[in-house]
Amino acid sequence: MRRYLLSGEGWPYLLVPFIPLAIVLDVANATATAIFIVSAIGVIPTAALMGKATEELAARSGPGIGGLLNVTFGNAPEIIIAVFALAEGLQEVVKASLVGSILGNTLLVLGAAAFVGGLGRDRQYFNRTAASVQSAMLLLATAALVMPAVYEMSVGRGLPAPTAVHIDYDPTVEHLSLAVAIILMLTYVAGLIFSLKTHRDLFNPPHEQEGEEGGRAPWSVRRSVVMLAVAGVAVGVMSEILVGSISEAAKGIGLSEFFIGVIVVAIVGNAAEHWVAVFVAHKNQMDLAVNIAVGSAAQVALFAIPLLVLLSFVIGDFPMPLVFNGFELAGIILAVIIAIQVTNEGETTWFEGLELLAVYVILALAFGFA
Amino acid sequence: MRRYLLSGEGWPYLLVPFIPLAIVLDVANATATAIFIVSAIGVIPTAALMGKATEELAARSGPGIGGLLNVTFGNAPEIIIAVFALAEGLQEVVKASLVGSILGNTLLVLGAAAFVGGLGRDRQYFNRTAASVQSAMLLLATAALVMPAVYEMSVGRGLPAPTAVHIDYDPTVEHLSLAVAIILMLTYVAGLIFSLKTHRDLFNPPHEQEGEEGGRAPWSVRRSVVMLAVAGVAVGVMSEILVGSISEAAKGIGLSEFFIGVIVVAIVGNAAEHWVAVFVAHKNQMDLAVNIAVGSAAQVALFAIPLLVLLSFVIGDFPMPLVFNGFELAGIILAVIIAIQVTNEGETTWFEGLELLAVYVILALAFGFA
Amino acid sequence: MRRYLLSGEGWPYLLVPFIPLAIVLDVANATATAIFIVSAIGVIPTAALMGKATEELAARSGPGIGGLLNVTFGNAPEIIIAVFALAEGLQEVVKASLVGSILGNTLLVLGAAAFVGGLGRDRQYFNRTAASVQSAMLLLATAALVMPAVYEMSVGRGLPAPTAVHIDYDPTVEHLSLAVAIILMLTYVAGLIFSLKTHRDLFNPPHEQEGEEGGRAPWSVRRSVVMLAVAGVAVGVMSEILVGSISEAAKGIGLSEFFIGVIVVAIVGNAAEHWVAVFVAHKNQMDLAVNIAVGSAAQVALFAIPLLVLLSFVIGDFPMPLVFNGFELAGIILAVIIAIQVTNEGETTWFEGLELLAVYVILALAFGFA
Repeated sequence: MRRYLLSGEGWPYLLVPFIPLAIVLDVANATATAIFIVSAIGVIPTAALMGKATEELAARSGPGIGGLLNVTFGNAPEIIIAVFALAEGLQEVVKASLVGSILGNTLLVLGAAAFVGGLGRDRQYFNRTAASVQSAMLLLATAALVMPAVYEMSVGRGLPAPTAVHIDYDPTVEHLSLAVAIILMLTYVAGLIFSLKTHRDLFNPPHEQEGEEGGRAPWSVRRSVVMLAVAGVAVGVMSEILVGSISEAAKGIGLSEFFIGVIVVAIVGNAAEHWVAVFVAHKNQMDLAVNIAVGSAAQVALFAIPLLVLLSFVIGDFPMPLVFNGFELAGIILAVIIAIQVTNEGETTWFEGLELLAVYVILALAFGFA
Repeated sequence: MRRYLLSGEGWPYLLVPFIPLAIVLDVANATATAIFIVSAIGVIPTAALMGKATEELAARSGPGIGGLLNVTFGNAPEIIIAVFALAEGLQEVVKASLVGSILGNTLLVLGAAAFVGGLGRDRQYFNRTAASVQSAMLLLATAALVMPAVYEMSVGRGLPAPTAVHIDYDPTVEHLSLAVAIILMLTYVAGLIFSLKTHRDLFNPPHEQEGEEGGRAPWSVRRSVVMLAVAGVAVGVMSEILVGSISEAAKGIGLSEFFIGVIVVAIVGNAAEHWVAVFVAHKNQMDLAVNIAVGSAAQVALFAIPLLVLLSFVIGDFPMPLVFNGFELAGIILAVIIAIQVTNEGETTWFEGLELLAVYVILALAFGFA
Repeated sequence: MRRYLLSGEGWPYLLVPFIPLAIVLDVANATATAIFIVSAIGVIPTAALMGKATEELAARSGPGIGGLLNVTFGNAPEIIIAVFALAEGLQEVVKASLVGSILGNTLLVLGAAAFVGGLGRDRQYFNRTAASVQSAMLLLATAALVMPAVYEMSVGRGLPAPTAVHIDYDPTVEHLSLAVAIILMLTYVAGLIFSLKTHRDLFNPPHEQEGEEGGRAPWSVRRSVVMLAVAGVAVGVMSEILVGSISEAAKGIGLSEFFIGVIVVAIVGNAAEHWVAVFVAHKNQMDLAVNIAVGSAAQVALFAIPLLVLLSFVIGDFPMPLVFNGFELAGIILAVIIAIQVTNEGETTWFEGLELLAVYVILALAFGFA
């Protein structure tokens, strides 16, 4: 047990005590800053459990359904946080956290994986073809994420300020965003057919490779489903507490809501998954690391974002059109071009990893000054 | 005869009846919308005949002159339509249709070709080197197409609105556009020397591969020239009718002139050629399909656009500087980056084709909302 | 001696007479235009001597220290010119000359090398991996060079006009630029460890290959150091004269200070080095040519630019934040994407070289109209 908790996969569960602590602080009406920090840490073990339960269930379900489960629930914690934030009217924070998730995956995670994995090695190789399919998905999504902003600029309204908390968008751009989200969703479904059916040999299901390492007995279906439900509830509870404290905590800490969304929430929602990518890169499984990082970014862009746009028309008081601010647009475009450049090569070195980390730090600095 | 008309190459001639119908409607002063729709369909067979006559003449002229003919007359229908539009003062529509032609070739045609060709196949391969030369041409042209807009923004005038019908540009940006157009033209001439002389082995003349399929007797030079002349006149007549009806038809249909230029006119002018690309991709001749799609886009960017800028200084009441609106710029940049990404790989799958189609639909949606 | 002066390496010394002439004109209070032109030409031999002395010293110092010397002093002339310009308050000219140096290296030098080298050859090959590391550095730097501008636009202040001579920036963007410069510097240091220590086999020290050609006896350490000192003083003297005449000469010639910085100063500071790249490409040493061109651009972006930002906080009356104008941003982004595309292929042709030159001319035209 202790060995598991200190292993690459087990460490998030060391943070379990933060879950009840967050609930206590929330009930006790502690300061928003304290609630925010504790509940942010509390999200990490719940997201880790959710990922674990999904994988176990997927391992029991055969490659087709299993792949579907893995892919669909892969970003579930982020989506759950976002749903609570939409209900609170934090539409701009949700967009920031989604962009932050793309940046975090392509720059922070891929960078950390390439850096850690590359130390002491000449270079690490991965399968260019599978990676290119995923960076092509990101490129497609970029078109979708940029065009509503182009629309807003062309009609002379300009982009939202990064400090904006609530913006009244024009109904036209809301309809455009809805239409674009539907196209993204349909493309995502086609992508599932591609990766799970017609070209499934291209993609290695991550859980198989991990499974071979551990040698632990797999969970039963029943246990997996129960754990998935427990994790879902736990993520939900933590998310509600986290989201409820964001606005006040932002003032308390002296950071903008934008920065909290794009850096803090994005990291918290992906922390467990991120750690796995770095861990497997260290073990020289660079294929899996690139797949987690770029694949996760592609999934946010093609699944989480359009899903939340659609949901925003029924949850909360006003919809969330796909109009990103200048920082978000610059970040997305840079991240996608860098992801294409890295995946085109099919190899990484520690310095390439460091460069990606440097870009992430530069973006975070600029976001912090916003 | 019937078999030919129902074949991949022959179907456009089924639309011949729309030619006299367009003339009748025009003479009879029918509604602009009816004239527009019928004459747009009538353009398709005339453009197809022009392409066919050019190919036959090229096949008779040896590789050097033949290649030159193919390349130069390849976009003749679009250029003829544009000349009539310039004379009508529809400069903004002309720019939209040229951008639409680049987008149509790199996204719609390449996407449809890769999608249709990829169905039932694992992947399709093509020669990276030839394709990369053409996407590099597109990249060069992007610099030319973007800099006048950068100039306009830097001097604080901003970009034209997509709804603008006639804009009074500053003489400075007109002179800059002229200079840029001349550079593009000179580069195009150098490109001809490259592809027809010093590196002609790189490029397969498309007509040869097609010729082998049909096995039909080639046209005589005399017949080719007569047909080229007939087609030229027919394209001209259809173009004049089409162009004369655009402004009113736009109001009638409820679409902007910009949308009609960038989507409708662009598709109509290229329809026959587009069909061929999809057709050969289906027969797994992906080299030819990529050559038609990306090569045609490069030709519009490096030949048709600068030619029309030069002509605009002598045709019509005011010149057409290379200042594109925000939608056009975003579309060009996205299309070029995507073309580079696709051609760098040297292979396509049905899903990649679908992604390109999705980007085209997203752009068209955004254009439609403009 | 005569043979050396007319050789590829020796020609800059034919321009030595311009050095005393510049001093005489300056003392005699000649017109600013005359002083500017003569001192600009006078910079070329001093920069060439500096490069030569650095190489000789590096050849004596073993690969580690030698590489460090080569890399660090490689752009010394440009940095010296920039330091004098900062002291004169010509911050906008300094930024223009640094951007011009990146553009000059990736477009003008690489283009001329590929064009001249490709004439009469089918194609030239170079090592993709080493070149990709350098274009990845450029891509990283682009993030750094773009984000402060994104900040300025997001807070609603917009970009500086290219005609601006002195701009009062907000302290926030000055601090952001400082932070970004420090990140770039740290990455540069990591890059030195990468290229001189952990992965030094990837990079061929240029001087070794040249040395084999000439077969001349190497300089002693003493002679190298003396020459380096002499060259440093000479560059300094020429720079001070040059910089002192820029503002008035700009008016006299009728060009903007921006154009003089981005085209003239950038070319003058790199002329000797540029010539070497074209010369070795002609001898089919394309690896070396690409290394000089793209490597030099990467060094400007990751070393010269952050160094000068740091220095600007202690030299001159006001700091130089990393806020580039629209022309500079468009130029950098185009140049980087083109550099990535070219280096990804690992081969060049004369036409590719011509395309790069065409992009440079198009940019220069747009800059000239600014």
